[in-house]
Amino acid sequence: MSQTQDRLGVAVVGLGGAVATTAIAGIESIKSGSNDLSGLPLADRAVGGLKPYDGLVFGGWDLCEDDLGTAALGHGVLSEKHLSGGAAALKDMHAWPAVGSEDFCKNVTGGNKIAVAGHRGAVERIHDDLSMFKEEQGLDRVVMLNLASTERTPDLSAEAFSSREAFERALDRDDPEISPAMLYAYAAITADTPYGNFTPSVAADVPVLAALAAERGVPVAGKDGKTGQTFLKTVIAPALRARALHVDGWFSTNILGNRDGLALDDPNSLKSKVGTKLSVLDQILGYPVEDHQVHIHYYRPRGDDKEAWDNIDISGFLGERMQIKVDFLCKDSVLAAPLAIEIARTLDLAKTRGQGGVQEQLSVFFKMPQTKDGALPEHAFLKQVQTLDDWLGEA
Amino acid sequence: MSQTQDRLGVAVVGLGGAVATTAIAGIESIKSGSNDLSGLPLADRAVGGLKPYDGLVFGGWDLCEDDLGTAALGHGVLSEKHLSGGAAALKDMHAWPAVGSEDFCKNVTGGNKIAVAGHRGAVERIHDDLSMFKEEQGLDRVVMLNLASTERTPDLSAEAFSSREAFERALDRDDPEISPAMLYAYAAITADTPYGNFTPSVAADVPVLAALAAERGVPVAGKDGKTGQTFLKTVIAPALRARALHVDGWFSTNILGNRDGLALDDPNSLKSKVGTKLSVLDQILGYPVEDHQVHIHYYRPRGDDKEAWDNIDISGFLGERMQIKVDFLCKDSVLAAPLAIEIARTLDLAKTRGQGGVQEQLSVFFKMPQTKDGALPEHAFLKQVQTLDDWLGEA
Amino acid sequence: MSQTQDRLGVAVVGLGGAVATTAIAGIESIKSGSNDLSGLPLADRAVGGLKPYDGLVFGGWDLCEDDLGTAALGHGVLSEKHLSGGAAALKDMHAWPAVGSEDFCKNVTGGNKIAVAGHRGAVERIHDDLSMFKEEQGLDRVVMLNLASTERTPDLSAEAFSSREAFERALDRDDPEISPAMLYAYAAITADTPYGNFTPSVAADVPVLAALAAERGVPVAGKDGKTGQTFLKTVIAPALRARALHVDGWFSTNILGNRDGLALDDPNSLKSKVGTKLSVLDQILGYPVEDHQVHIHYYRPRGDDKEAWDNIDISGFLGERMQIKVDFLCKDSVLAAPLAIEIARTLDLAKTRGQGGVQEQLSVFFKMPQTKDGALPEHAFLKQVQTLDDWLGEA
Amino acid sequence: MSQTQDRLGVAVVGLGGAVATTAIAGIESIKSGSNDLSGLPLADRAVGGLKPYDGLVFGGWDLCEDDLGTAALGHGVLSEKHLSGGAAALKDMHAWPAVGSEDFCKNVTGGNKIAVAGHRGAVERIHDDLSMFKEEQGLDRVVMLNLASTERTPDLSAEAFSSREAFERALDRDDPEISPAMLYAYAAITADTPYGNFTPSVAADVPVLAALAAERGVPVAGKDGKTGQTFLKTVIAPALRARALHVDGWFSTNILGNRDGLALDDPNSLKSKVGTKLSVLDQILGYPVEDHQVHIHYYRPRGDDKEAWDNIDISGFLGERMQIKVDFLCKDSVLAAPLAIEIARTLDLAKTRGQGGVQEQLSVFFKMPQTKDGALPEHAFLKQVQTLDDWLGEA
Repeated sequence: MSQTQDRLGVAVVGLGGAVATTAIAGIESIKSGSNDLSGLPLADRAVGGLKPYDGLVFGGWDLCEDDLGTAALGHGVLSEKHLSGGAAALKDMHAWPAVGSEDFCKNVTGGNKIAVAGHRGAVERIHDDLSMFKEEQGLDRVVMLNLASTERTPDLSAEAFSSREAFERALDRDDPEISPAMLYAYAAITADTPYGNFTPSVAADVPVLAALAAERGVPVAGKDGKTGQTFLKTVIAPALRARALHVDGWFSTNILGNRDGLALDDPNSLKSKVGTKLSVLDQILGYPVEDHQVHIHYYRPRGDDKEAWDNIDISGFLGERMQIKVDFLCKDSVLAAPLAIEIARTLDLAKTRGQGGVQEQLSVFFKMPQTKDGALPEHAFLKQVQTLDDWLGEA
Repeated sequence: MSQTQDRLGVAVVGLGGAVATTAIAGIESIKSGSNDLSGLPLADRAVGGLKPYDGLVFGGWDLCEDDLGTAALGHGVLSEKHLSGGAAALKDMHAWPAVGSEDFCKNVTGGNKIAVAGHRGAVERIHDDLSMFKEEQGLDRVVMLNLASTERTPDLSAEAFSSREAFERALDRDDPEISPAMLYAYAAITADTPYGNFTPSVAADVPVLAALAAERGVPVAGKDGKTGQTFLKTVIAPALRARALHVDGWFSTNILGNRDGLALDDPNSLKSKVGTKLSVLDQILGYPVEDHQVHIHYYRPRGDDKEAWDNIDISGFLGERMQIKVDFLCKDSVLAAPLAIEIARTLDLAKTRGQGGVQEQLSVFFKMPQTKDGALPEHAFLKQVQTLDDWLGEA
Repeated sequence: MSQTQDRLGVAVVGLGGAVATTAIAGIESIKSGSNDLSGLPLADRAVGGLKPYDGLVFGGWDLCEDDLGTAALGHGVLSEKHLSGGAAALKDMHAWPAVGSEDFCKNVTGGNKIAVAGHRGAVERIHDDLSMFKEEQGLDRVVMLNLASTERTPDLSAEAFSSREAFERALDRDDPEISPAMLYAYAAITADTPYGNFTPSVAADVPVLAALAAERGVPVAGKDGKTGQTFLKTVIAPALRARALHVDGWFSTNILGNRDGLALDDPNSLKSKVGTKLSVLDQILGYPVEDHQVHIHYYRPRGDDKEAWDNIDISGFLGERMQIKVDFLCKDSVLAAPLAIEIARTLDLAKTRGQGGVQEQLSVFFKMPQTKDGALPEHAFLKQVQTLDDWLGEA
Repeated sequence: MSQTQDRLGVAVVGLGGAVATTAIAGIESIKSGSNDLSGLPLADRAVGGLKPYDGLVFGGWDLCEDDLGTAALGHGVLSEKHLSGGAAALKDMHAWPAVGSEDFCKNVTGGNKIAVAGHRGAVERIHDDLSMFKEEQGLDRVVMLNLASTERTPDLSAEAFSSREAFERALDRDDPEISPAMLYAYAAITADTPYGNFTPSVAADVPVLAALAAERGVPVAGKDGKTGQTFLKTVIAPALRARALHVDGWFSTNILGNRDGLALDDPNSLKSKVGTKLSVLDQILGYPVEDHQVHIHYYRPRGDDKEAWDNIDISGFLGERMQIKVDFLCKDSVLAAPLAIEIARTLDLAKTRGQGGVQEQLSVFFKMPQTKDGALPEHAFLKQVQTLDDWLGEA
C-alpha cells in the first residue's frame, strides 16, 4: 500500500462505464503486483510530484446499480479472467447514486439516482460524496473525471451562461439548460477539486465555469479524449502539410457497439461528438477541407471493439491525386483508460504546482483541447507531445 | 527568364527516369507560366538565398537514348496532355551518355554509354560534362543529384574503401568494387559540386568520400528519398511511442510496376533497398521490432502508381492487442520529384552559406539520413521537419 | 452501318446522365471501328435474335439542355480524348425535352422540360417522341430504358394504384402520386415498347403496370442496376452460406461524388436506394442479419469514381469470429453502362421470342429483381448467371 | 455414445497440429452435449449413410510428443476455456509415433518417431496402427486424413513413379524420392482405407497411387484444403468473368504465424503451396493472368490468426480500370477443421456407396482438386457446391 502522501482519489462521473472500469482494472492489477505498465504514456517519466499509479484510489457516480465487476463484463472489455485475477476488487465496488437527465442523454438510463430535488441539492450531494470519499479512504487529495456518456449540447446562448451571477440564479431556479455535466463541474470547482472532462459534453468549458476555475485556482482540462481516429488524424495531417500534400477530402467512418455507441444513436449527442472531430483538421492544415466527413455508427457485432476507417484524398506535385486509407481496429476503452489515468495524475500535479484554471499543456489527451481566453487550440499531435514534455520537465 | 544569380543547374544521374522527368515537367510548367506550386514542400517559405523554382535548369546523364518526352511517356507518370502543355520542353531534351554497370544494376540497361575506358576516364568525362553544362547554359552554380536506379551494395570492407589513398589507387586500377554511383559522387565532390543521393545506392556515404566532401567543403546529403511507405512509417511510429502503444509487428508490402520496381527484381538491389527501410523503426521506437518485414514486389498493372500496404500489430493497456492498417495508393515519382527539387535547392543554399560536408538538416528528405561521424540519424518525421525549419530560419 | 433488321432503338429516360452517355460512347466507339468489347457480359455469346452492339441507336429524354458531349464531360467519366475519338458523335446529340418533378427528385433539375400540361399530355408526348425516333432513324424496334436519377418512393397504398381503372382515373386527374417514372413506363407499355428500369424508382413494378405489361405482352424488367457493392455482396454471401460461415453483421458504406450521389442527398431518394440494398442479404442467407447497414455518402473528391467499403463480421466453427473487408474502387457508370446495354438487347430478344410481362431471367442485372406475382426474387449472383445462360441457350 | 454402425474412425497424419486439434475439440464438444454445429457446411443436410458428427472417433500420428491439449494450447487456436469445457478429452489423447523426413519438411521436427527402419517397415507399422485403432475403439470403418505440414515437392519424373512395379521396387530400396505423405497414402490404400489429403504435399495424387486406389476401389480425395484466400478467390473470379471484368493482375499476400507458416519458411515447401494457389485463377477466367502473385509470410504476432490481403486490378467497359481489395482476417484452423471433418464423412459415404478412386465431387473442399485421368479440375466455388449437392442428393 502506498503512503498517504502518494495517494490520490479519483472521483469518476460514470464509474460503471467501460473506460472507468478498464482504468480501475489496470490500476488494481498494478496494486496486486503486476508490473505491466503497458499503454501508460507517462510510465517511463520520472517527474517529482506525479503520483504513482498504485497510489490511485477510485470512486464515483453512476446511474447503473450493478457492482463494477458485473458492469465491466457487460461492456465486453474485461473478461472473467481479469476479474478472477488482478482486477478482482471490481466485484466489490459500487458506484454512488448519480445525477442524470434523460433530456441531456436519452439512451443511457439507470436506477441509481441521487434522491434529492433540484440543482442546489445535487451540488450539495456531490460535495458530500467528495468529503465522504476523502474521509473513508483517508485521502488528502482528490480529482474529478467526467467519463460519462455524451450529453446533447445545451443552448450556450441561454441567459444562464451570460455571467457568473446569471449562472448562480439559474442554479437557484433549476434552469433546465444546466446539464448534469455542468453540475458536476461546478461542484468540483467549488470544492477546489481539479476537474477533467474526457467527454464531448459541455462542462468546465462553458466560459462562466472556466472563469470560476481560474479565479479559485482549480485546474481544469478538457475535452473529449483523443483515442482512436482523431489521434491518428492529428498525427497524419501535420505530416501531409509538411509535405505540401493537399487534402482534397477526408472521409472518416466509425463502427462501434458499446454503450457509448448507443448514446450516440441520439442525434443530439452525435452532433456534439462529430462537431469536435470536424474542427480539428482545418486548423492543422491551415485551410478548410470542405469534404471532411465524420460518421459514427452503432454496430453491435463489435461490442467495445471499434473500427475507424479513414479515406484521405490528397493531391501533390503537378496536381496528381493519391489516396491514403487507414483502418484502425482498436479497443476504445483500452485506448481511453490510460489517458484518463494520466489526466488525473497531471491535473493533480498542476494543483501541486499551484497552477489553476485551464491546463493547456494537457491538450495531447483531448480531441478538443480547452484553451484560456478562447484561443485556438494546438491540434497537431507531436507538437502537443512536446508541450506536455516541456511542462513535465519543469522543475 | 530568371536572372543569372537566380539560376541553378541541376545535373541529374538518371535524367531519363521517372523521378527526373516528372521534376523537369513540373519546373518547366512553372517556367511557362503555371502558378501551381502544389506538392513543393518549401513553396511557402521565403528564405534568402534559396533559388526560385523557375531558376532551375536541368541536364544530366542516362543510359537511355530516347528524348525525355518519349522517356517520360514510357514511365506512365506524364501524359500527352502534359507534353503538349507546360512540359513540352521535355521533347527537345536528351540525356548525356552515362556510366553504367550491369554488375551493379542488372535489370536496367541502355545504349547511351560513355565511350571512354576506365574509372579515371569516366570521372574526367563527368567533369567535362559539368563544365559544358555550365558554359552552355550560362550557369554559375550546379548541384548533382543521383536519381538513377538502385545498385547492389558493394563490399564495403574491400581494400578500396579503407583510406583516401586506397580509393585513389583503386580508381587507377579500375577496381570493380567502385560502383557507378561512387564515380559520380567522386566526380561531383572533386568538381566542388554539391551532391545529393536520392537512391539507396552507396555513394557519398562511403566514409572515404564523406571525408573528402568535408575536407573540400562540398555539401553532400542522402540517401534514399523518403516518399511513400517509409514517410508514413516515420510519421506514425513516433506517435505510437508517445502513446505507449507497443509495436508487436509491422508488416509492409509494396507493389509497383515502374523501372525502379524492375531494378528491384534483382535480389541484390532489393536487399539494399529493404535494408534502409528496416532500420528506421527500431530507432524511432527505442526497442527492436523483431517482426518487422518489408517486401517490395514488381507488379506491372500499376506502372508508376504504387500501393504500399502496412499492417501494424500493437498492444496497449492491459496488454490488449489492436491493429492499424494503412493502404497508400500513391504515385512514386509524384511524391519523389518535389523532394528531389528541394534537395537541389537546399544543397545549393548550404553551399551559399559555406556549409560543407554532410547536411544532416536535410534528413527529412531521406529514408536513411546520412550523418556526420557515423552518428545515428533522427528518423522521426516531424522532428526532422522542425530541424529543417530551424535551419532555413537561420539568418 | 448495320442492316435494318439488325438495328434497335434505345430510348433512354435520363439520356444526358453518366450511365447513358458512357453507354453511348462505348457503342459509338464500336461503330467507328473499335473492336473493344471489354466489359460487355454477353460479348462472347452467339445467340440468334440478339441484336449486335453496333446495331444500337440511342435517343431519349433529359431535363438537361446540354449536348451529350458537354454533359458527359461534366460527369467526369469520359475525357476529351474519348470525345475526340470514337465517341465524337456525342457532341452532336441532344436529349428530347423530359418530364420532371421536383416533388419526386429534388436535387436534380434542368430547363429541358416537356411543354405540355398534365399526365395525359406527357404520355402523348412520349408516344410522339417514340414514333418520331423510329421514323427519323428508320427503326423497326425500340426499347425504353430508365437511367434517370432516383425518385422518392410514392405512396403505393394510394387509391391511384388500387386497380387498372383507378390508375387511368388518376392519370385523368393528374394525381400527384403518379411519378414521372411511372408515366414513362405507362407510355412504353401502351406503345408496346419493352421497358427496363435501371433505377430504384417505382415504375413498371407497381402491380397495376406489371399486369398491364403482361396483358399486352410487353417485356418489362427491373429494377436498380446491380453494379458495385451489391454485385459483390450477392457474390460473397452465397459462398459464406455454403461454408456455414454465419454473418453476424455486414456494414457497407459508399462514397461517391456524381449526380447520382447528389440526388441521394435527398433523404427520400436515399431511402428507396438503401431499401433495395438491404433486402438482398437476408434472402440469400436464409436468416435475418440484424446488423446489416448500408450507407451512401455524397463526397465530391471522387466524382464518378465510387468507393464501396464493406466490413463483414462472420463466425464459424466453435463460434470463432472472423472479419472480411472488401474495398471496391470502382467507376459507377463504367460498371453500369454495359449492363444497361445488355438489358436493352435482352428485352428486345424477349419481345422477338414473344415473351411478355416481367422478365425474371434478367435478374442478374438488378439489385431488386422484379418477379411475377410477387414471388421472392433470386439474389445469388451465380444462380442468376445460370438462369440467364439457360434462357439465352433456348432455341 | 453413438451406436456402432454410426461410428467412424478418423486416423489423422499430423494429429497434434492446429487443424486436427481444432477438429477434435469441436467434435468432442458436440459429444459432450453442445448443439453448436456452426461452421459445419453439411450440418443442415440429411443424407442417408453420412455418419453423424458425434460418431467420429479420432486417432493418428504426430512427431510431437505432447498430449493433444498441450499441443492445442501451443497453436493458440483453443484456449484453457475450451480445454476445461467440452474439449477436455484432448488432454488425455496422445498421437502415435509418426513417419517424418527432414528432407521433405525441414522446419517441423519432433521426437515421436516410428522406431522402424525403411519404407516397408513404415508401411507395415501404419497398417498395424490402423488395425489397433479399429480394435481398441471397436470401429468397423476408418478413413485417413493428411493434416500434416507441407512437404517439398518430390521429383515426379523420378523412376520410382514411372509405374506400379517401379514404385514397389522403390519402396523395397527405400528410395529417398518417396515422401512420408506417399507412404501414408500407400498404406491407407493398401489397407482399403479411404484417404483424404488436406495438404499440398504430393500423396495419392501421384498417378501410380491414384491408379492403385481406383483398382482397389478405395476412395481418395485431395488436395490442399480450400480455406481462406483461395476460397474467396474462387468465389470472386467467376463473378468477374460473368461480368466481363478483365483481371489485369491479382496480388495476394498472406501473413500467418502458426506451425504451418513456419513450415512454409522452407522455400521448397512454399513453392508447392504457392503453386496450387496460382493455377486456380487462369482456369476459372479462361485466360492467363500474367500478373498473378501469391506470397506467404511467416509473421509471428498473428499466431494461428491469418490475414489474407488481396488486390485485384480489373478493367471493364471502355477499358476503364478499377480495383478490388479484400482483406480476410481469418483463423486458419477454424476454417480448415470443419472441412477436414466433412471430407472424412463424405469419403466414408463414397465407400458406403461403393465408389472408389478419385472423388471429384469433393472438389469444393480443395484448392487443387484431384481429378480422374488428369482432367482439368473445376475451381469455381459455387459450381463445386452444386456438384457436391447433386452427389449428396443421389439416393
